[in-house]
Order: sequence, then structure tokens, then C-alpha cells
Amino acid sequence: MPKGLEHLFNPKSIAVVGVSDKPGKLSGVIMESLAASGFPGTVYPVNPRHTTIGGQRCYQSIEAIGAEIDLAVLAVPASEVVPVLRNAGSTVKSAIVISGGFAESGAKGVAVEKELSEIARKGHLRIIGPNCMGIFDTVSKVDTFFIPGDRIRRPAKGGLSIISQSGSFAATALDELASEGIGVARVISYGNMSDVNESDCLDFLAEDVHTAAVALYIESVADGRRFVEAASRCSSKKPVIAVKVGRRDAGVSAARSHTGALAGRYEAYKAAFRKAGVIELDGYEEFMGGCKAFGRGISARGNRVAIITDGGGVGVNLADLCESAGLDVVPVSEDIRERLVSVFPPYFSIGNPMDLTGSATDDMFADALDAALSGDSFDIVIAAVLWGPPGLTDDLPEMLAQKAMLSGSKPVLVCTPGGDFARGRDAIFRRHGQTVFATPEGAVRAASILARSAGMKARRIKKDG
Amino acid sequence: MPKGLEHLFNPKSIAVVGVSDKPGKLSGVIMESLAASGFPGTVYPVNPRHTTIGGQRCYQSIEAIGAEIDLAVLAVPASEVVPVLRNAGSTVKSAIVISGGFAESGAKGVAVEKELSEIARKGHLRIIGPNCMGIFDTVSKVDTFFIPGDRIRRPAKGGLSIISQSGSFAATALDELASEGIGVARVISYGNMSDVNESDCLDFLAEDVHTAAVALYIESVADGRRFVEAASRCSSKKPVIAVKVGRRDAGVSAARSHTGALAGRYEAYKAAFRKAGVIELDGYEEFMGGCKAFGRGISARGNRVAIITDGGGVGVNLADLCESAGLDVVPVSEDIRERLVSVFPPYFSIGNPMDLTGSATDDMFADALDAALSGDSFDIVIAAVLWGPPGLTDDLPEMLAQKAMLSGSKPVLVCTPGGDFARGRDAIFRRHGQTVFATPEGAVRAASILARSAGMKARRIKKDG
Repeated sequence: MPKGLEHLFNPKSIAVVGVSDKPGKLSGVIMESLAASGFPGTVYPVNPRHTTIGGQRCYQSIEAIGAEIDLAVLAVPASEVVPVLRNAGSTVKSAIVISGGFAESGAKGVAVEKELSEIARKGHLRIIGPNCMGIFDTVSKVDTFFIPGDRIRRPAKGGLSIISQSGSFAATALDELASEGIGVARVISYGNMSDVNESDCLDFLAEDVHTAAVALYIESVADGRRFVEAASRCSSKKPVIAVKVGRRDAGVSAARSHTGALAGRYEAYKAAFRKAGVIELDGYEEFMGGCKAFGRGISARGNRVAIITDGGGVGVNLADLCESAGLDVVPVSEDIRERLVSVFPPYFSIGNPMDLTGSATDDMFADALDAALSGDSFDIVIAAVLWGPPGLTDDLPEMLAQKAMLSGSKPVLVCTPGGDFARGRDAIFRRHGQTVFATPEGAVRAASILARSAGMKARRIKKDG
Repeated sequence: MPKGLEHLFNPKSIAVVGVSDKPGKLSGVIMESLAASGFPGTVYPVNPRHTTIGGQRCYQSIEAIGAEIDLAVLAVPASEVVPVLRNAGSTVKSAIVISGGFAESGAKGVAVEKELSEIARKGHLRIIGPNCMGIFDTVSKVDTFFIPGDRIRRPAKGGLSIISQSGSFAATALDELASEGIGVARVISYGNMSDVNESDCLDFLAEDVHTAAVALYIESVADGRRFVEAASRCSSKKPVIAVKVGRRDAGVSAARSHTGALAGRYEAYKAAFRKAGVIELDGYEEFMGGCKAFGRGISARGNRVAIITDGGGVGVNLADLCESAGLDVVPVSEDIRERLVSVFPPYFSIGNPMDLTGSATDDMFADALDAALSGDSFDIVIAAVLWGPPGLTDDLPEMLAQKAMLSGSKPVLVCTPGGDFARGRDAIFRRHGQTVFATPEGAVRAASILARSAGMKARRIKKDG
């Protein structure tokens, strides 16, 4: 583990500095979140203007607590951050600085942020932030994301970890993952990186037994060479996906005013991702597609896709989209064809895509999936369910889930385009552990990410062997 | 209007052939749909095996009705289609053949479909289909889509018309549009085009006063030159968007077994679209994006986009996505900057994107939108609302809608990425007439389509002037 990070990811004691008795204040939300997440250590509220907060003793300062503090969470005005940490001295082992108003806000902020970096270096404490949301961690049960759970739902425990320079991007992804029923391990919003940066986090997550896959959102990296090293180490152990924003003119200047990031030449990032075995994503939709796939622990062995649908037009569109995304819509084998021709009506189109038409039933869909998953013809199955046919019922999700489970490890990606009825069915698919998307494109994006991950693994094995 | 089409789009009498008393049968659903949609003409059930259907007199044949029939809807086995129409003779003015089992199913089907074409030609009646869902029409109140309304919701009356070779694609789009609260005029699923094809429909919709925009889904066109002529005429009067599926190897063969379409060289289609002023779309997501934008009657004057958000990371990503999509993320003018600097906190980033940060309130968001809509700096505004900030409430959708309305015709595209809370807010935005998307990419797709439409208009004016 990188030096000092254990205090951030496994603290026994947390001081929340800047706690107020006014409802809705950031630090108050953090106190509530730590209680709600079941953090097992001790939490100390700190504010010189209060002696009690919600019936609990409130400390005048960190040093007034009189105990070592593994993690100090600072939600105080920018000007108070450096004094608070200076006064605390060696009492504090690590800090998360939520506060904004640093490098992202101009020359004066840059100077204060430099002081913060100095404190980290000289004081040998690790600092996440400033201008960040900090950590949401289902392992250590730390939650410094300062948005109430009714606005941003917290996911359950899972194997996906997220490293994000943007707090709101991370929070939005968290909320969507929670609504999708997908769990996470560690989520780190690191903001302006006065100290801890994306490479520190990658080093940590590479060794973290709770993390099975890593998703990155970056505007800039602190040190290109170190990033390639850290990302390479991590990607040799688990899939790493990344979206780099601030690519061209408008995005670059937007990134500067967002986290003070010097976004740099996009081409250099593309090359670094390639070299480091990182799967590059285009934006929010691909980011969520990758999070949904890897968050469910799915992986594929290659890029051969079978398309099963009851909607011919959507099937043709899926074939196009797959080809554009570099997926291989290979013909069905003779074995599969013979097996299905004997049981299906003559007007079904037993090819790839497999079009079960408006006469489709739950059983037929399940039979087609079973056939596509058998043998070694395909690496990924996309099942596009349109809910028009009366023969398709609410039993279908469970039936498909059972076939997928029996077949072992081949990923089945479901898409159910349409309106309210289709959206209602999504929940049933999810309840049965299925990965479901609202559009054909959603399923193809996830399939493409899985195939690219398989391709990288194959190249790595070839290189190492 | 193209010859004979008035019977299809304004029938006074409809015979539904093949009506059964078994619940769930296609023809029964069509009878129910015609009743539910409030079709004001006479509907005659026809089936030689029944004398009454649901208490209503059932006729042995079309000719037994003893009256002229504007539209016969056939949901009978493929082998019975030609005899039914032959026997009816000149009693029938037009027909929709729902039945499948024609050119899409092999050599024998191709032969029967040829007979059907002959009947249309010699009998001077117009035939839609076979292998289609027919017409859903909020003007004539004809609804032959044979899927019950609980599975596929029917949209209200609106200005968007859809021409689709695929029935399930059209039905799925209808369902999504209905759930989004977007209305339609005429929706035509024309299937195998034994007679009526996409160009006939384009000719009709070009002149149709109820149609303000046209969306096309095609696998193949009957006659390339005629398509370019018809599409050019139509696009000179109203926006025409189109998705062509069956592009490369896998898609082409899939299209053949779907509607018997010879999908042809994709490059030829691209050229035809360009020549005809048709905006080409990539697939389902772009198709829905275009339908949502034009279905709300939105248009833009150019490609200059303003991005307003409270989520910095999503703002940077939006700037990237806009640039990739050919949109121009121009800097904010000095006027707008001065106006906002005086009222906003100093840590807001007043640029493009405009980042209102986690301190955003409803009023600030509305002020920022008002400024972006003022003057002539921008053609389109994308408002990306992340629901973390406590200052953003359920009042925001109405406040933004009011600013958008006051400003006149500039389109405001809202996106609200996230989970259940965000999805719940979508409904409020829609209730206030706003066009809302679940992802940043969704809004950018719609913006790009509007900008391309504006570009085509500008080129046309230049050419004609």
C-alpha cells in the first residue's frame, strides 16, 4: 500500500471539522452519513463556536480532542484550512479537504494550495482534495460525500472502485449505480490533488482485495510517467476503464476552471492509456456502461456476439452497431441452427441476429439463449426484448437469468427499448441479477468494453508468454 | 396527394378481415384499438367462420358487406391474402396486409408477394404491407397496430410523423414517445412494400398539413432516384431525419431475412441522404433524440451551444461531447459575463460551460439560463442538472421552462443524469414542456440533430437565393 494511505482507507477515528448546528450544512450531512453508513470507529465533531452538537460533545479544535486522529475531514472556508492543519500538527494522520476556493479559483488559490501540499510533504500526512467529495467506502464504512441519501443514493458493497477528479461526476455515477442495484468497494473523489493523486489511488486499488475492477474519471494526471506505471500495474491485475475529459479547446479550458487542471494534449493521454492497458471510454454513457458490466463482475473471452431479439428492426440495427463497435456478429453454427430449426416455427429467422418475431414466447427466448450460450460459437450474447408479443411475460427475466447462470461465465446483456412498460420490466431483470440497458446502444457499448478488455488480456498473455 | 392514398389516411369505412372471438388475436386487438382511438367511421368485422363477434354482426366476406370499403385490414394466413383481395374486387379501395410469410420467408413467399403487387397495380387499390403493423394515425384515428395499449402506449396528437419499414421499431418508438408525453400525427409501418413504399409516404407527408417533421426507418428503398426526389421535396418543407439499417455484412443479411430487403451499398444511401437534405441518424438512440426534439416542435438557428450546469465534471464532458459532435462551444460574451459576475458568487465559473457548483440554487440556474438565452450569442442551450445541491428544488423545472418560453424560439435541452431521484424529476420537466434526457450524450445528440437541420436550411436558402 502507498505510504500513509491506510489512514484514509481504514481509519479508526475521524474528526469532522467545521460541524455546524444548522441543518443542511455540509459537515452535518457528513456526520449523518457516517452514522448511516455504520462507521465503527469514533467520530469527533470539531467547531470552536460550539460546545455540543446534537447532544454530542463538540471540540474546540483537533488538538483539543487529546487523541490521535486517523482522518480529519475539513469542511471549513478555504482560508481556515491551512491554519487548522498547522495547529493540529502530528495529531492528524490524514485529511480530506472538502473545501473549494483553491487552485480552481485563480492565483491566490494556487498559492494556498501550494501551502497545503507543503504541509502534506513536511508533516508526512496524506491529504485528499481540496475541492472534492472525499471517500465513499463500503469496506471501511467511511462516507464523506456531503449529499443526503435521498438525493444521491449510496450503493451496497460490491467489487467496483471509482477514482474521480470530479465530485459531482462520482456522486451522479454512485446514484445511478445504487438505483441499478450495483455495488461498489471504494469511491474516491480526489479533486485538486494537493497531495493524493490518481496514481496513489491506482497503487492502492491494485493491491486492494476488495476491488475487482477500477473506473477512472480524469481531467489531468499529476505525472504522466508515474500514471502509466501505476495504471499498468493495476490493469495487470484487474480491468481498468477510464474517461479523460477536457480533450480539445472548450473542454480543456472548462477543466482548468473546474479543478485547476492543465488538461494537456489529448493524444498523449490516448497513448498513455494504450500503453498502460487502460480501456478508454468516451463519456458518461460509456463510463456507466463499463461500471454496470464490471460492477456485476462480468467478463468476456472475446468479441463474438450473438444477437437474440423478437424485434427484427432492432436486430438489424444491433448488427450494424456491433460491427461499428468492432464486435464480430459471426454466423450461427450448424449445430445451433439444426437444434433450433427443429423446435421453432418455420418463419423464425435462425441466424445472427436471431429474430423470434412477434410470435416469440418466454420458452422460445430461453431456448434461443440456451443454444447461443452452448458450445464455443459466441463470447457475448445481447438479448433485445421488445415487449409487444403477448407470449413474452414477466417470467422471462427469471428464465433468461437461469439459462445465463447454468451456462457459466458468458455475459448476457439485455436491452429493453421502449416506454413505461419496458422500464418497469428492467427492475425484474435486475432483481434476477441481469445487466439491463434501456437502448440497443447501451448493450453494445457494454459489449464493446468487455470485448476490448478481453483483447487486452489476450495481448498481455501473448506478450508475457 | 399520391393517387389512392386518401383511402389509407382518411377512410370512412374499415373491414377487419380475420376477426376471431379468441381473446388476444391480432385482429381482435385491432378492433379494440379502433374503438379505443375513437375512429369515427364504420368498422366491419369479417370472418367466414362467425356470424357475430362480440355481439356485432360478422360478415362472411368483404363482398358480403354490400358497401364500398375504403380500407381492408387483413390479418389472415399468407395463403389467404390474395384470394380475399381477388374476391373483394373493386369493392375495396385500399388494404393493409398485416400478415407475414411473404418475401421475407423465401422463394415461395416472393412469388405470392408478386401476386399481391399485381393486384394493387391492376385493381388500382393501394396496399400497405405485407409483414407490417400498418397505420397509427391521430388525425384519421386509424390504429391497426395490433399490440394492446398496456404493452405499447399510444401517443397523443402531435406534429411528428414516422415512416418505418420495421413494425416493432415503430411500435417501440411510439411507446417511448407516449411515455415521454410527445405526440405524433401519422405513423406508418409499411413492411415488405408490395405496393406503397417509403417514397409514396414521403410524398403524402410532404403535403400533409398535420405533419411538421418526418422520421424514417429504412432497410432498403424501392427506387433510389424516386426516393431522392420524394425526400428532397419533403425536406424542403419540413425536417426529415432517417436511420438506415443493414449497413455492412451482418446488418445486410439480417435485413434480408427481416423484410426481404436488399439493403444495397450503404455509401449510396449516405450520398442519397445528403443529396436529398435528409439528416442521417445512427440508430435507435439518435432516432429517439430526433423524434423527441422535432416532436416538441423545436428548431435551432445554428450550432452555437451554451452549457449550464451545477456539475463541473459533467460540464467538461459536455464540452468535449459537443466538440466531437460538430457543435460550437463558443465563449460567453462580455455582456453576459458582466451581467452574471455582479450577481453570482466569485467561485462560480462564468464561462462556457457555466459551472454553478454545488452552491447552485433554482434562482441562480434560472438567471444563468436567462442570460444565455439573451442576445445572439447562442443557438442552443444545454442545461445539465445534477440534483446534489440542496438549493435545487422541484421548482426548478417550471422556472427554467418560464425562462425558455419568454426567450422565444431558442431550444433548451435538459439532461439530468443519475438514479431514481433524477428520473423522478424528469417527469416534472416534461410536465412543463421541457425536452429532457437521462444522459449528457442524449442532450448532445439532440443538439447535434437540431444544428445539422439548421445547417441544411441555411445551405438551401443560400442555394435557392
